[in-house]
Amino acid sequence: MTESPRIDTPRLLARLDALAQVGAIAGGGVCRLALSDADKAGRDLVAGWMRDLGLSVAIDAIGNIVGTRPGRTAGPPVMTGSHIDTVRTGGRYDGNLGVLAGLEVVHTLNDAGITTEHPLAVAVFTNEEGARFAPDMMGSLVYVGGMPLDAALATVGIDGAAVGAELARIGYAGDAPCGAPGVRAYVELHIEQGPVLEAEGIAIGAVEGVQGISWTEYTIEGVSNHAGTTPMRLRRDAGYAAAAVATEVRRIARTLGGDQVGTVGALTLSPNLVNVVANRAVMTVDLRNTDEARLREAERMLAAFIARLAEDEGVSITARTLARFEPVAFDPGIVARVEDLARRHGHSVRRMPSGAGHDAQMLARVCPAGMIFVPSVGGISHNVREHTRPEDVEAGATLLLHLLLDLAGG
Amino acid sequence: MTESPRIDTPRLLARLDALAQVGAIAGGGVCRLALSDADKAGRDLVAGWMRDLGLSVAIDAIGNIVGTRPGRTAGPPVMTGSHIDTVRTGGRYDGNLGVLAGLEVVHTLNDAGITTEHPLAVAVFTNEEGARFAPDMMGSLVYVGGMPLDAALATVGIDGAAVGAELARIGYAGDAPCGAPGVRAYVELHIEQGPVLEAEGIAIGAVEGVQGISWTEYTIEGVSNHAGTTPMRLRRDAGYAAAAVATEVRRIARTLGGDQVGTVGALTLSPNLVNVVANRAVMTVDLRNTDEARLREAERMLAAFIARLAEDEGVSITARTLARFEPVAFDPGIVARVEDLARRHGHSVRRMPSGAGHDAQMLARVCPAGMIFVPSVGGISHNVREHTRPEDVEAGATLLLHLLLDLAGG
Repeated sequence: MTESPRIDTPRLLARLDALAQVGAIAGGGVCRLALSDADKAGRDLVAGWMRDLGLSVAIDAIGNIVGTRPGRTAGPPVMTGSHIDTVRTGGRYDGNLGVLAGLEVVHTLNDAGITTEHPLAVAVFTNEEGARFAPDMMGSLVYVGGMPLDAALATVGIDGAAVGAELARIGYAGDAPCGAPGVRAYVELHIEQGPVLEAEGIAIGAVEGVQGISWTEYTIEGVSNHAGTTPMRLRRDAGYAAAAVATEVRRIARTLGGDQVGTVGALTLSPNLVNVVANRAVMTVDLRNTDEARLREAERMLAAFIARLAEDEGVSITARTLARFEPVAFDPGIVARVEDLARRHGHSVRRMPSGAGHDAQMLARVCPAGMIFVPSVGGISHNVREHTRPEDVEAGATLLLHLLLDLAGG
Repeated sequence: MTESPRIDTPRLLARLDALAQVGAIAGGGVCRLALSDADKAGRDLVAGWMRDLGLSVAIDAIGNIVGTRPGRTAGPPVMTGSHIDTVRTGGRYDGNLGVLAGLEVVHTLNDAGITTEHPLAVAVFTNEEGARFAPDMMGSLVYVGGMPLDAALATVGIDGAAVGAELARIGYAGDAPCGAPGVRAYVELHIEQGPVLEAEGIAIGAVEGVQGISWTEYTIEGVSNHAGTTPMRLRRDAGYAAAAVATEVRRIARTLGGDQVGTVGALTLSPNLVNVVANRAVMTVDLRNTDEARLREAERMLAAFIARLAEDEGVSITARTLARFEPVAFDPGIVARVEDLARRHGHSVRRMPSGAGHDAQMLARVCPAGMIFVPSVGGISHNVREHTRPEDVEAGATLLLHLLLDLAGG
């Protein structure tokens, strides 16, 4: 590999730092909610860098920014990218790393005078986080035709503003046709946002797919009673029922094993007093698996438990689906290539699922797609303390460079 | 029983209604927090009725009102009574029934021209609810010497006011010696405030004692993580741990059986989001039993479970005692007498514990004591919908009349 081009890590870290100044918040974090003034400023900065690097920049009708570098032949580009919008208390790596590592790859190729066979493109997808406008991954979803453009533009956010109006306001309602050009292949570098790589001392994750997600809100209605005077046999305790659901979620995850995870993150009791049996509980259950059949099995197990519980405790339990996405499998060839490249560059690597959603899962609908994960310190993300070590940034960007060269014909 | 005196139920209900107008709130409820203006107005009304009935009224230094009817001999009276302070959204029966049924007994004896062997007294104890000043049952506790008077007077309430100053302000800082006269026996009529009598279709509860109470607040500290990206084995989930504690509380209550009850009424997660493993949970556990040894066993079982859970889940769990009272046993002779009288008057009756605290448990420290329970519709109390049917009011007051005649020598 000695004559290979090398990415310039300090230059990449400097761009990460410069972008992190836009919408900076206390503690080293970033707040750039989609289509906000801060998002506009971040977009302007990144689009400017694209132009400085000689990319032709196109903005489409949902505000996706695609910077393209010509290849020796025309046709659809090999694309990389991610997003630069953040949650309200976000970090500087989530999304941004994928975009800026893409620019660093372009910068490195420019410096080395390398032209790839196929064009290369770096994309910034609109509203990946979904923190202001639902659904998340909106820009990439519209890009691949998974959501009608007019529905996306009409989406009203948490502050009452609409996507279309906000795009126009910040100057990113572009005229490029949405979803063009077609994409030859898509790869995305991203921080893991979880603890697995760090816990296992592994440098690179070869992401095999994105977990399917099943989010349900349960509302449990029981009867409020005096905690001292009501015998156990006469109770219809919404608080107990909620706790039983939460422990069952853990049991299901343990029973199914593998990648199955289950979480009760939100639980609220009423009236929430020490000496009153709760008459109402509202709780969420988050189930995820990379295997749709097993995810459905987890849902079936929980539904059966809840039906028995409602009868045994004499409570009513109503379910409301908050989100349901089937798992996405990435291209096996790309997954194998990531694994192989990591080993050839001397990095430990493991195949793994993504527990979080990413733009790559939308692109996987229309082309071979894959992802490279690098470790998140402490598994922390969506938090101002989000951090990825410089050596991991370097390893990830280097793999991205070689993966793009492989896919685009270097 | 044909020549027995009979209580006048409409007259008793009329007094209950008149007292309920003082501090009336929407929905038919009452708000007369201890030593408030409404409490003063209620006290004035009841003390006036006492004087109208010929009782000699004494106010002691903690504001207890004791109206005494002479007997054929002097010496300590047989006492009945309860309290007229309420919680913020209280009903018209809790406490008030015991006081006004006592007055109705006196009225009935006056009308029948009956003088008992021993004096009879009707007491209104200060601040039984504890809704404004802690601890609850303050007046009866001071009356029996269980709390120093100066400590009680110095108690500052939720609104910053002190008991002593408020007693003086409303004119109920009396000069009668606290705890005098001694008491020959004490019996109290009270609504059950629970669902047992109604559920079993039983008219009268012969209260054997008051449950011991163990209230603990647990704070569980885990680690906040992404619900999708954090494998089950790497979690330190405060929310799961809280749910496990709540289900264990139910298991312990079921395992110990008998009168053991256990409740997790309050539980709060942080950050309380669908897709974030909770890093913090604060919860309460309410354990009660009439048997101190079994209550301690419940506490031991829970402590052992929590120690194992903290280690297994990798969370820290700290406990803070909110309240701990040992059970109180009422006088077996009085319990048997209540049971026998109920049967002789054609009422179904069962022995039962009180799950709530009552002034009678304080008086039990200094004299034979007991209680009569009548059903609460729906088991509801501390609520504007608190209700006890007129026929149950009549049955309870009739039993109180005959029990007092028995104890005082009718």
